[in-house]
Amino acid sequence: MSKLSLSITMSLDGYVAGPDQNEENPLGVGGMELHEWVFPLKAFREMHGQEGGETNASSAVVEERRANIGATIMGRNMFGPIRGPWPDESWRGWWGEDPPYHHPVFVLTHHPREPLEMEGGTTFHFVIDGIESALAQAKVAARGLDVWLAGGASVVNQYLAARLVDEIDVSVAPLILGAGARLFEGLDPGTPTLNQIRAVDAHGVTHIKYQAS
Amino acid sequence: MSKLSLSITMSLDGYVAGPDQNEENPLGVGGMELHEWVFPLKAFREMHGQEGGETNASSAVVEERRANIGATIMGRNMFGPIRGPWPDESWRGWWGEDPPYHHPVFVLTHHPREPLEMEGGTTFHFVIDGIESALAQAKVAARGLDVWLAGGASVVNQYLAARLVDEIDVSVAPLILGAGARLFEGLDPGTPTLNQIRAVDAHGVTHIKYQAS
Repeated sequence: MSKLSLSITMSLDGYVAGPDQNEENPLGVGGMELHEWVFPLKAFREMHGQEGGETNASSAVVEERRANIGATIMGRNMFGPIRGPWPDESWRGWWGEDPPYHHPVFVLTHHPREPLEMEGGTTFHFVIDGIESALAQAKVAARGLDVWLAGGASVVNQYLAARLVDEIDVSVAPLILGAGARLFEGLDPGTPTLNQIRAVDAHGVTHIKYQAS
Repeated sequence: MSKLSLSITMSLDGYVAGPDQNEENPLGVGGMELHEWVFPLKAFREMHGQEGGETNASSAVVEERRANIGATIMGRNMFGPIRGPWPDESWRGWWGEDPPYHHPVFVLTHHPREPLEMEGGTTFHFVIDGIESALAQAKVAARGLDVWLAGGASVVNQYLAARLVDEIDVSVAPLILGAGARLFEGLDPGTPTLNQIRAVDAHGVTHIKYQAS
């Protein structure tokens, strides 16, 4: 059965983005530091069409996360810096004309927009009727593969509160951000229920995977 | 040189105690669940004068944490449920007449009280002139050994903000508490600076150790 798998990097104090996100700081002030562990990896560079890179204990985790994924769900702020109605069709995501997804991506928004077909197999679909609809559409689009819940915090917290997430793989970065977008915020006690599957001591980061229900 | 070492268990959403701490719920509602990983351990049971218990990947972590410790610092709520001035001398801590410390323990409080000598080598000293004074006194009392910063969140966050903590060993429990006393709260970005030393994938818990500066 198709699973909804969250994989995300958070600071030790629980933030997945810094404060003041905008076009110059897509991840907020200091937020890019969260991902310093992933940029040098060969497995990451390949996804972005780059050569070279290193292999370490994080490599298998990155490969495991992208394996078996047939569709992605994200919040609107992860797609772009624009708030409110779309002024025009000119914003086409943070990733250029060939985004690193190569499958259908469902963007949760309050503002309708036509699907946006990019190069390399990525199509952005804009979903205005809520998280359950986005999940149902993503599961169909994934054709039996899993769905990646990519972020940001607000959308992830909604899926967690609704107990719709099947797996959580959180990379804990050795960093205090102090402010920003907080993961696991506004949840009821025990929501979701977690069962630790594995933890990986990697180069400057710890990856902890849970089964959620 | 004597180090200040924080070791503490936190939920995945960052709490070290649940809400509504009182005499019946020293760790707040749901807070006891944080420590389910430690109770069955032989290394833990020995500290509390009990026989039996199991050995798993957490055992070496527990032993490492208690080795080389010559004094402990804690906040007042960790010593007892009483708020405001001490009504009398009758409260003698949560741990009975032979507490599991066996060394001097410095309790931060706003309300003066005479030192309290218990069985087994534990003496509680009540410090009213702040965290730096408590640390200085604890380092002297530790006689070259390290000082354990035990909790709770408020006192720990003050030491972290002042960059007085040398090591952080945080046990991440597979649990969402949703509310309570939050660790790493109110810190400035990058305060403290962290360097991951190791992570241990243990039975239902992950122990991540950082050098802090």
